[in-house]
Amino acid sequence: MSNKAVSYAGPGKVEVIDIPFPEFVLRDGPGVHPANVGRKVDHGVILRTIATNICGSDQHMVRGRTTAPEGLVLGHEITGEVVEIGRDVEFVKVGDVVSVPFNISCGRCRNCKTGATGICLSVNPDRPGSAYGYVDMGGWVGGQAEYVLVPYADWNVLKFPDREQAMEKILDLTMLSDIFPTGFHGAVGAGVGVGSTVYVAGAGPVGIAAATSAQLLGAAVVIVGDLNADRLAQARSFGCETVDVSLGDPKDQIEQILGVPEVDCGIDAVGFEARGHGREAQTEQPATVLNSLMDITRAGGSLGIPGLYVTGDPGAVDEAAKVGSLSMRFGLGFAKSHTFVTGQCPVMKYHRGLMQAILQDKVTIAKNVRATPISLAGAPNGYAAFDDGAAQKFVIDPHELIPR
Amino acid sequence: MSNKAVSYAGPGKVEVIDIPFPEFVLRDGPGVHPANVGRKVDHGVILRTIATNICGSDQHMVRGRTTAPEGLVLGHEITGEVVEIGRDVEFVKVGDVVSVPFNISCGRCRNCKTGATGICLSVNPDRPGSAYGYVDMGGWVGGQAEYVLVPYADWNVLKFPDREQAMEKILDLTMLSDIFPTGFHGAVGAGVGVGSTVYVAGAGPVGIAAATSAQLLGAAVVIVGDLNADRLAQARSFGCETVDVSLGDPKDQIEQILGVPEVDCGIDAVGFEARGHGREAQTEQPATVLNSLMDITRAGGSLGIPGLYVTGDPGAVDEAAKVGSLSMRFGLGFAKSHTFVTGQCPVMKYHRGLMQAILQDKVTIAKNVRATPISLAGAPNGYAAFDDGAAQKFVIDPHELIPR
Amino acid sequence: MSNKAVSYAGPGKVEVIDIPFPEFVLRDGPGVHPANVGRKVDHGVILRTIATNICGSDQHMVRGRTTAPEGLVLGHEITGEVVEIGRDVEFVKVGDVVSVPFNISCGRCRNCKTGATGICLSVNPDRPGSAYGYVDMGGWVGGQAEYVLVPYADWNVLKFPDREQAMEKILDLTMLSDIFPTGFHGAVGAGVGVGSTVYVAGAGPVGIAAATSAQLLGAAVVIVGDLNADRLAQARSFGCETVDVSLGDPKDQIEQILGVPEVDCGIDAVGFEARGHGREAQTEQPATVLNSLMDITRAGGSLGIPGLYVTGDPGAVDEAAKVGSLSMRFGLGFAKSHTFVTGQCPVMKYHRGLMQAILQDKVTIAKNVRATPISLAGAPNGYAAFDDGAAQKFVIDPHELIPR
Amino acid sequence: MSNKAVSYAGPGKVEVIDIPFPEFVLRDGPGVHPANVGRKVDHGVILRTIATNICGSDQHMVRGRTTAPEGLVLGHEITGEVVEIGRDVEFVKVGDVVSVPFNISCGRCRNCKTGATGICLSVNPDRPGSAYGYVDMGGWVGGQAEYVLVPYADWNVLKFPDREQAMEKILDLTMLSDIFPTGFHGAVGAGVGVGSTVYVAGAGPVGIAAATSAQLLGAAVVIVGDLNADRLAQARSFGCETVDVSLGDPKDQIEQILGVPEVDCGIDAVGFEARGHGREAQTEQPATVLNSLMDITRAGGSLGIPGLYVTGDPGAVDEAAKVGSLSMRFGLGFAKSHTFVTGQCPVMKYHRGLMQAILQDKVTIAKNVRATPISLAGAPNGYAAFDDGAAQKFVIDPHELIPR
Repeated sequence: MSNKAVSYAGPGKVEVIDIPFPEFVLRDGPGVHPANVGRKVDHGVILRTIATNICGSDQHMVRGRTTAPEGLVLGHEITGEVVEIGRDVEFVKVGDVVSVPFNISCGRCRNCKTGATGICLSVNPDRPGSAYGYVDMGGWVGGQAEYVLVPYADWNVLKFPDREQAMEKILDLTMLSDIFPTGFHGAVGAGVGVGSTVYVAGAGPVGIAAATSAQLLGAAVVIVGDLNADRLAQARSFGCETVDVSLGDPKDQIEQILGVPEVDCGIDAVGFEARGHGREAQTEQPATVLNSLMDITRAGGSLGIPGLYVTGDPGAVDEAAKVGSLSMRFGLGFAKSHTFVTGQCPVMKYHRGLMQAILQDKVTIAKNVRATPISLAGAPNGYAAFDDGAAQKFVIDPHELIPR
Repeated sequence: MSNKAVSYAGPGKVEVIDIPFPEFVLRDGPGVHPANVGRKVDHGVILRTIATNICGSDQHMVRGRTTAPEGLVLGHEITGEVVEIGRDVEFVKVGDVVSVPFNISCGRCRNCKTGATGICLSVNPDRPGSAYGYVDMGGWVGGQAEYVLVPYADWNVLKFPDREQAMEKILDLTMLSDIFPTGFHGAVGAGVGVGSTVYVAGAGPVGIAAATSAQLLGAAVVIVGDLNADRLAQARSFGCETVDVSLGDPKDQIEQILGVPEVDCGIDAVGFEARGHGREAQTEQPATVLNSLMDITRAGGSLGIPGLYVTGDPGAVDEAAKVGSLSMRFGLGFAKSHTFVTGQCPVMKYHRGLMQAILQDKVTIAKNVRATPISLAGAPNGYAAFDDGAAQKFVIDPHELIPR
Repeated sequence: MSNKAVSYAGPGKVEVIDIPFPEFVLRDGPGVHPANVGRKVDHGVILRTIATNICGSDQHMVRGRTTAPEGLVLGHEITGEVVEIGRDVEFVKVGDVVSVPFNISCGRCRNCKTGATGICLSVNPDRPGSAYGYVDMGGWVGGQAEYVLVPYADWNVLKFPDREQAMEKILDLTMLSDIFPTGFHGAVGAGVGVGSTVYVAGAGPVGIAAATSAQLLGAAVVIVGDLNADRLAQARSFGCETVDVSLGDPKDQIEQILGVPEVDCGIDAVGFEARGHGREAQTEQPATVLNSLMDITRAGGSLGIPGLYVTGDPGAVDEAAKVGSLSMRFGLGFAKSHTFVTGQCPVMKYHRGLMQAILQDKVTIAKNVRATPISLAGAPNGYAAFDDGAAQKFVIDPHELIPR
Repeated sequence: MSNKAVSYAGPGKVEVIDIPFPEFVLRDGPGVHPANVGRKVDHGVILRTIATNICGSDQHMVRGRTTAPEGLVLGHEITGEVVEIGRDVEFVKVGDVVSVPFNISCGRCRNCKTGATGICLSVNPDRPGSAYGYVDMGGWVGGQAEYVLVPYADWNVLKFPDREQAMEKILDLTMLSDIFPTGFHGAVGAGVGVGSTVYVAGAGPVGIAAATSAQLLGAAVVIVGDLNADRLAQARSFGCETVDVSLGDPKDQIEQILGVPEVDCGIDAVGFEARGHGREAQTEQPATVLNSLMDITRAGGSLGIPGLYVTGDPGAVDEAAKVGSLSMRFGLGFAKSHTFVTGQCPVMKYHRGLMQAILQDKVTIAKNVRATPISLAGAPNGYAAFDDGAAQKFVIDPHELIPR
């Protein structure tokens, strides 16, 4: 059976290629860790992909900021229908429509047993934590494809209760594989609760998801900061306040909104490719967001940090940043008794509750992020538009199942 | 009535001076914030100081690393007997023997109401958080004196249940005002629980207190790292494993002890005056400890950071460190999903439980830190010896009440 | 100055009487504990009452189910303007408009220091916990009066940031003194989070507040059960599903709503005066609600129990219930690993966040409970109507300050 | 291959019988749920049993208090060596020495994913939660046998790091399958922390394990109550205080020990077969322990309830108890804001940490419970002695591998 997929084709380039149909074994290929070559995946299922989104963290690879090999199949945000099940699968059935956490996890190791699926010890020979279609994450084939293999399926997938209902809300549900839980994790890490005031740095899809999550958690005021006017408008469209960081320090604008120059909770939805504020907004300044959040988050507050920081960044602006070092005003954080919560979101902790919120019409995440379905062939354009700062979340629909 | 006290007399110098007997008002003096001059303290009590310890954070001032004014009365670790009570005091009585948290807090503000007494909003006009005898902390007179004023006494003090029993264990109980809770807070922040493996960076009194706390919390293995052989011997004396960081990266030595090069929980009991490891051990390298802890703490672990980091450090080795910026390998922490818990310990959260552990002979903190009583007149020598790295905790005994 | 107040005048009767204007001392009177007579209250403030609500727990006294003495001034839900401050008050100012938690607490005892203000050790000589105008709670004079004394004011009161804004939303803000936090505490105790399904037993004001809170916390579906058709209609008016328990076991109706006969979270907003389900709905069956919640709450779930259970109930239907014993199917709860969270709500934990949610238009608690202002003279009628099951929350407005 | 096992042979009788050697399928047999007959267990491993303990909850069956069928193979406390692995097992190897949690859980359902392995949804067709060799728990064959099948082995088992070390400490490690985590769960549920005062009702093995756990968690004072003088002596042997409940209400004796008639934390290690206190100590009074704990636990405290309460008890003293109803003084618990934490211990949450504490010599659970190895043939005598109240924990050693 044919299987078309989106792959990385060198800095700034993605293309649609033909790849083999998945088998219940991990074959060698671009980015597959040698120790994973030939790994049996009888615990896996094969999905016909219904929706698979382009993610900001894919952009890090596409921009050439990583060591991703050419030919790597992209995509870790996967929703699909089960078309084949491995020999060892017991609870997932052919025909189930499921969401797949972007974290691949085994459900058997010490970390998985505590719910820390973002740092599973068994699936990536290099280090704790894994993902589909991502550099240095073990080599699991990406999901921006017509068909994809999902390992440890009984553990990993979240089944939607009703197929028809799922297809009606598919543009919302597809956000469960990554950005909605990731934004929610940021809000939880930041300690957002009923009545909180919240600042979200970054109005890309994760930032919008974090802002949406903060609202869902009962925040009193959610303020989103970015340089991109379209994205800020998008944040305002569902009730957020906004700060244009190109105009200067967020602190002053926050004071205008709240009457005080600080918030209860800070969320970093930007990560290591941060740019400066005000006149320095064109320069990459990797510690800007973290330092700004320490400045504007009240004493005793927490910083939820879903934005990606990397251990190595060959394309960084200086030597320190190339090895993942940042010049952080940690003394300020200490003086304010801040807590910093970092790391990949363990999607499984949150996806069921967020699914229920979607199914019961408590949240409109697709509308908030402007989910925009595109064809598999349109993926390269989607990548380009997203890189240009489109205030949209592109959802690849390889089988044209999603109503436009 | 006379009142002798220990005061800062310029870089490297402390001396015993005469200061006024406390009144129920905060008078002007070295380091008193203008907005606090004349503040009424009818809610306070006056203590005859029984024990008041020299703290590593006092050393930062004495070394001239801060903007502390000459004449500042030192001392924030205070245990004493109530000799006079303010008009508004209802529950504390004359004759009570009490421990005083080094954090001064009001018990009325938003932060105090949640137990965050380390960032009380009412007592320091400069910023959240306060302490006795400390630069930029509001100007409350230090407790290394014969008599000291304790504000908001009904809220702040912890009464010992029995005077005689208290005097028998006074060298243990005096550690409740700061280092024992501070070390415990570090252990709690690091997520220490039954069966944990723990690395404590720093074998000074706070490090020893953190190691003791980790044991009390049920840790399986506690490893303490330092450059100072005497302090390491002190850590071994109560069952810790040790790492001599002058011999190189702690990681290798940890692997020899545990069989794996990582621990569950990391505690930074060093702070901003950290030195390098191995051949770089003579150089001040402010981010060394934090970066090392990210390296050796397992994915998913937490870093408890009781060691002090400052917002400004005029005596720092480079421009970044002078404004409290550190070159942190934050990308590594992110990849490992670390949580960083910083800030002054809110002593009140822990002192009652730790007192019970002391009174019921569950812990020997005085022995572990080698509590050493000295006279008030001997305080300058105590400061000098501590600065030289003595593996001791000096307890000033102004009224010669402590048996030698 | 005159001071009119609502008082208990024997079973089934309340009346408006003249009482003394408050002083900064607790004078003897109906229900005042002998040990509290003459207690100095220099830490108190005197409020001009703006809004003071009739509460379901007042009804227990008015129905003669308790040992409340005649002449007891009722009312523990108090919002007002500060007109006089005691000598020791430092942070509250004359003119402040404040909400008063119904729990009186000292802010100095072991329990208050951990936020457990519902079981303060210092204000009620009989046992932990206190309240205004309530039997066996220390004898603090009730707030259904023109003026009322609030002790330990710096600790207890919540100041509204802006007077004008407060008066505009006063019918919402008055719910912060008790039922909104109490319902919220029930939801928190039940473990309500984003995506939860929730059953609230009881559609009186506390049940409605619990349902509102569950929505605010992100619940996917909130189901409210009661016998009273008007109250069920009220619950539906803001998006709840409902169960008419007069028609039989809630389990079946829950299954019709959710597709499964169980919910994630159960809340008991009824308490000890519970009646049976279905044909037994006319009989008082004090364990009905608890047993039903064990039946319908999923394994691993929690039961939040804000509904009042008493240690003694002279008017109970059987001997066991008279001493507060209930025939509970505890084995069922055990088999399902249930957790039961009981007790008075510690209002201070929640009131600030809920205030922010109100002020930022995130919740319409007044509308949801049908807050209905009445005059002080109208209080007896309000009590009667509420006892008849009116789907309203009566807000006494002694000074006619609330716009009708 | 032969396989001898201990089975229930009617009220008061156990006997050693021959049963089939385990296969990777669940065959029909006494107590096997029809829906589980023929269930494939390719995810399982077969253990040669090294140690399998007699448990107090086995006694409920043996006394005829349940509907257990004759021929049921007993035993849910299992430690063994892997001798065969199922087709789908990936991480467990032949030769591994492992501890098996008494809760059977799938590692794939909603509850397992949150660590709630005590209420797994997939392994017991009757209801959430399962166990080996237990009535109404799905029919998984008990482990008091030479060989036993462990399903979902990659998820369930805890591997000991070193075989030789494990055999040296096998009498301690065998307690990890049930009573040590169960006692620990009771202590955690009761909120035991550093400095707590704790009362444990019941000095049987679970009570002793709870007391040991409380010490490990840093409790200041642990008091154990029972009727059995030998068991109380056993509790004193490792530093507990004791209360002889045959002498009257525990409250008075607690006051003599602590100076106050209450503790911070209460643990029920007795369950539904409780007897009265003082003169009523010969009568079964199922709510005695719970009511007593509400009486003696301080306001704001929690009750950890590992003691078993059942949904049906055909042998109970009255009709209410036969359906699992107890006459609880719930009003008292409410007045004191108690939290009640019930249910089977989710062993997996705790066994790794407790193993580390054992391996690093931080705890001597075997000595504390007087672990006593016996042969398989000696099991009937062990049951009888345990039922007579022997202050011992009998460890069946089917292959005579444990040094005496």
